[in-house]
Amino acid sequence: MSWTDLRSDTVTQPTPAMRRAMMDAEVGDDVYGDDPTVKALEAAAAERLGKEAALFVPSGNFGNQLALLTHCQRGDEVILGDDCHIVWHETGGAALIAGVQLRTVESDRGVMPPDAIRRRIRVGDDIHWPRTGLICVENAHSNGLVIPLSVMAETAALAREHGVPVHLDGARLFNAATHLKVDAKEIAQHADTVMICLSKGLAAPIGSLVAGSADFVARARRNRKLMGGGMRQAGVLAAPGLIALNEMSARLAEDHARARTLAAGLAALPGVAVDLDAVHINLVWFRLPDGVDGAALTAYLLERGIKANPPEDGLMRLATHWQVDDAAVERTLAAMRAFLAG
Amino acid sequence: MSWTDLRSDTVTQPTPAMRRAMMDAEVGDDVYGDDPTVKALEAAAAERLGKEAALFVPSGNFGNQLALLTHCQRGDEVILGDDCHIVWHETGGAALIAGVQLRTVESDRGVMPPDAIRRRIRVGDDIHWPRTGLICVENAHSNGLVIPLSVMAETAALAREHGVPVHLDGARLFNAATHLKVDAKEIAQHADTVMICLSKGLAAPIGSLVAGSADFVARARRNRKLMGGGMRQAGVLAAPGLIALNEMSARLAEDHARARTLAAGLAALPGVAVDLDAVHINLVWFRLPDGVDGAALTAYLLERGIKANPPEDGLMRLATHWQVDDAAVERTLAAMRAFLAG
Amino acid sequence: MSWTDLRSDTVTQPTPAMRRAMMDAEVGDDVYGDDPTVKALEAAAAERLGKEAALFVPSGNFGNQLALLTHCQRGDEVILGDDCHIVWHETGGAALIAGVQLRTVESDRGVMPPDAIRRRIRVGDDIHWPRTGLICVENAHSNGLVIPLSVMAETAALAREHGVPVHLDGARLFNAATHLKVDAKEIAQHADTVMICLSKGLAAPIGSLVAGSADFVARARRNRKLMGGGMRQAGVLAAPGLIALNEMSARLAEDHARARTLAAGLAALPGVAVDLDAVHINLVWFRLPDGVDGAALTAYLLERGIKANPPEDGLMRLATHWQVDDAAVERTLAAMRAFLAG
Amino acid sequence: MSWTDLRSDTVTQPTPAMRRAMMDAEVGDDVYGDDPTVKALEAAAAERLGKEAALFVPSGNFGNQLALLTHCQRGDEVILGDDCHIVWHETGGAALIAGVQLRTVESDRGVMPPDAIRRRIRVGDDIHWPRTGLICVENAHSNGLVIPLSVMAETAALAREHGVPVHLDGARLFNAATHLKVDAKEIAQHADTVMICLSKGLAAPIGSLVAGSADFVARARRNRKLMGGGMRQAGVLAAPGLIALNEMSARLAEDHARARTLAAGLAALPGVAVDLDAVHINLVWFRLPDGVDGAALTAYLLERGIKANPPEDGLMRLATHWQVDDAAVERTLAAMRAFLAG
Repeated sequence: MSWTDLRSDTVTQPTPAMRRAMMDAEVGDDVYGDDPTVKALEAAAAERLGKEAALFVPSGNFGNQLALLTHCQRGDEVILGDDCHIVWHETGGAALIAGVQLRTVESDRGVMPPDAIRRRIRVGDDIHWPRTGLICVENAHSNGLVIPLSVMAETAALAREHGVPVHLDGARLFNAATHLKVDAKEIAQHADTVMICLSKGLAAPIGSLVAGSADFVARARRNRKLMGGGMRQAGVLAAPGLIALNEMSARLAEDHARARTLAAGLAALPGVAVDLDAVHINLVWFRLPDGVDGAALTAYLLERGIKANPPEDGLMRLATHWQVDDAAVERTLAAMRAFLAG
Repeated sequence: MSWTDLRSDTVTQPTPAMRRAMMDAEVGDDVYGDDPTVKALEAAAAERLGKEAALFVPSGNFGNQLALLTHCQRGDEVILGDDCHIVWHETGGAALIAGVQLRTVESDRGVMPPDAIRRRIRVGDDIHWPRTGLICVENAHSNGLVIPLSVMAETAALAREHGVPVHLDGARLFNAATHLKVDAKEIAQHADTVMICLSKGLAAPIGSLVAGSADFVARARRNRKLMGGGMRQAGVLAAPGLIALNEMSARLAEDHARARTLAAGLAALPGVAVDLDAVHINLVWFRLPDGVDGAALTAYLLERGIKANPPEDGLMRLATHWQVDDAAVERTLAAMRAFLAG
Repeated sequence: MSWTDLRSDTVTQPTPAMRRAMMDAEVGDDVYGDDPTVKALEAAAAERLGKEAALFVPSGNFGNQLALLTHCQRGDEVILGDDCHIVWHETGGAALIAGVQLRTVESDRGVMPPDAIRRRIRVGDDIHWPRTGLICVENAHSNGLVIPLSVMAETAALAREHGVPVHLDGARLFNAATHLKVDAKEIAQHADTVMICLSKGLAAPIGSLVAGSADFVARARRNRKLMGGGMRQAGVLAAPGLIALNEMSARLAEDHARARTLAAGLAALPGVAVDLDAVHINLVWFRLPDGVDGAALTAYLLERGIKANPPEDGLMRLATHWQVDDAAVERTLAAMRAFLAG
Repeated sequence: MSWTDLRSDTVTQPTPAMRRAMMDAEVGDDVYGDDPTVKALEAAAAERLGKEAALFVPSGNFGNQLALLTHCQRGDEVILGDDCHIVWHETGGAALIAGVQLRTVESDRGVMPPDAIRRRIRVGDDIHWPRTGLICVENAHSNGLVIPLSVMAETAALAREHGVPVHLDGARLFNAATHLKVDAKEIAQHADTVMICLSKGLAAPIGSLVAGSADFVARARRNRKLMGGGMRQAGVLAAPGLIALNEMSARLAEDHARARTLAAGLAALPGVAVDLDAVHINLVWFRLPDGVDGAALTAYLLERGIKANPPEDGLMRLATHWQVDDAAVERTLAAMRAFLAG
């Protein structure tokens, strides 16, 4: 059976071109600075993001933690949204590795109100206070919403005013750029450093990048070694990564269109609630009718070749990506309709 | 000039009895377990707090950080109010020393809604998630409010349900007990461990205690050494500490009454806003009329022998304690009246 | 020009079979536990090492740090040789990530005298003392020597006697096994956990494994996520990794033989000192005659297609691996002879 | 019974003058910078040590850890003797609090050979290497020996040459100065920062100081708060501390003379081995004859009013201090003689 896997865009398999690129990759020992393919990827990413330099890392989680460690002194405070990935899904690493204190702002669907950020910035050098070391934003947010450029700009201005750097968790930055119809660097300009993932919607098997100033990246390179993220012939990952960056980033509008089709189809099902205005990228969140048995639903879908994560408290998420075509969207809607009718 | 110092209750000087006790203290090397006065204080504190054991530490900040370190594994998440002392005033130590991630709950004037706590407890062992290692409550809160026993009980029940311990920052626990007209142990029973300060309203020059199970205190003793808090002839501090615990804790109602008198007097001044229902302990918060020059006010008071911290954004705090008598309250009100009239 | 790269075995490029395996790899999202190739590699490694389970990690450095973090409580002391990789070449990560104190034993050419280990184990629970949390051994040692099985056994016995676990840094474990003419598990049996590298002499482009008890690996899996080492379609690395483990580990005797040939040839050069008895694996250390210009030598070699690291204080190291054949050894000896004669 | 306590000089009780000073101390809230006695002590200590500023801390252990935290970045390497207090007796705190890697030098009876230090300094910025952040020396050493000024000077020169700061653990600095017949600042000049204890031989009940540049002390003040060492009316400890610094430091030659008398008397006992040349300060180490039952010996002494720690592996240490007079030395020698004769 050929599966339709809607659990996440992290499940994407490398494309045939990526597989060929891995086989043919020119590689060297990247710890000696000898891997030409890694160098090419880092240069291409820096250029795409409008930064001086970039560094290849094993995962988005690694890239975010590396940014915290490199930006901050231990004991610093980091301001970020209470629903962001670093708070929710990075296993408490920020305290253990970077030794920083997370100070959350109540997020309004991914948006941190700049006024709320301002109230949390520590002004003056009271010895009772940690230093505000960093502000983190996430765009696109893992809730599927894209933060407007105006909010990014206002946050950046506020940060500069207080001499605090900004890190952008751009695990899905190209989805945000696609939604906003701008170059990725238009978003990244509002942050000192940015982390992007080549996996997820871009379909590379492994790898992320952290971009910023040349000085920042030099310090991050050292910290990457400390964190165990120095890899040897990393060109075998950089080669598909270049395809992810150069080619796959250009096709995300397709995934977004299918997500909207999926969302509209779900909204038409009796009792299903979807906020269509919140379908910015390739993630569709919706609420099932009361009383639906989530486990039964996912089992029903699985029998029909559709993988989905079970709903939590009636809330369900489906993701589109390059391995989800129009037919897969139709099959999914048909199965949902049949299940809910049954 | 004899000063009236209303800046805080941390400014309290030791009483004459405490000074004599220091001079006469029977002491030994507490690292060898040889100091009888420290042992007596630790036993007395444990008894008053209804715990198996207690440990003497150099400060409240030290005691809270020690509790975080002893309760938690590095990388754990700690749930606490976004306005609490550990978040605001402990220099980011929680990440650096205990290596824990602070996860804040929006506090409603010091009260963490139990439902909000519940939503933040991590249930299950998803590897993306830190473990919820501790819930911290603060009573009396440093904002001057006392958390009701019913909220304490509900939080404790919730914590037990999820197998998460509770630490009580009781820097002003005896003020809370005085307000609630209960024994301190009635409050402390809703926490696994409790930190109390002997300085502040209790007037000892230096020292706090952490109380809990015998096993917890044994582990904390080791961690106290690691953090550099093992002291030698600590009986010289334990001796006034015993007076703080046994005698000064019994007279806090006086301070509270004077705080209410002060608050009522301030409320009668034109343009001054005081929430009289929020004057639970010895701390009076009030808002000055628009346009008042805070620096001029504190300078004016200082000339009249009254020390006060300047208002922040028009909000001002005054503290009563054993060195503030009725006459001092009257003098303060008269000076405020005169300044605002002028 | 086709290069002969003798700088290290970390420079090894993937074999043609590995490149095909990457292209053809069956992959899934390893964070969902969906990658069959990773699972196959982890199972194969566990079997080869005689452990219950194994975990794929991005690098040897990562694997060692993960082992420290998973074995130890923060503040523990780790006993290890003063010339080992964790002390010398892991950027101080042990203190930052695991929060452990390194306690070194003067190593006798890689061998930690068991009596010296014994003297450093902390017995009893004096609160002034850290707990001895781990003993680390390295075999083959990065100095090129193989630790005898009898020493491994004695160290393990000593550790068990004191209830201290042992971690084996086996970055070149298969080289050690080849030299000792035993299965890798014969060495690994003397450690609770073992880290092996698939890169270096085994030629996989990226990747290491940490093996141990099922419980240890489950905890390490969580910590791997925390450290940012969870990767998605990691099967693209596991596929060449299986070839490294199953096939390349069987051919290391060739590299060792060429290293001995190289060493013997160097020993015959006037003024060059080589301890032939110390050429256990694929690494040849030798001392140049006094007065040799190291930079000139490496430049001379480079012009002849031979890459080598410059000597430090007259001491030089060359490494053999699958891309160094008999002719390359001959060319290298000829070039050395010519340079030293000139 | 009036005890003679030879277990350590940490057991010293405050003198009558110190007790009166505590009672009469002028105090204020030191966190507000209001305590005149603390300020006076910090100024006096800075002057005595030839440094710009000094900071009062709760213990010597606290002061050393604070120095590590303030000098170093996390992940730095600290070079120090393998027999020093920070390695042996500070509960592994260096890794947990400062996050630094200890790199030990084999000490020759407390002296770190400068050449051995030189070999451990990391020169260059290889990303595999931690930065060398600090060199720590201890004088007098806790083994009772005083490090010659020439070694201190050579170490300082070496450190300056490499831009590495030096911290001096001077828990018994005044003992060293007394032995060397120089001002304490003659020793302290060879370090950037110095920690001294007011307890131990100086007999203050509690407290140590860290001295250094004004900038260092300002940063240390902040870190002291973070570590929980900010204390309120600390003048009650500073008052006896001033007596310790000003008066007790001048009488240590008495303790040293009694230690020599004790050592000579022990050396005359049959089978007892004492290295008389190693009795530099108030600590006497000696080896008991084979077969002596250590527990029986300490019990025997205890019955005669003499407290001593039991020997470890036949090695025993006795300490003299202001509460040990000539008669106590005689009683001790008599008791030892009788026990060994019996």
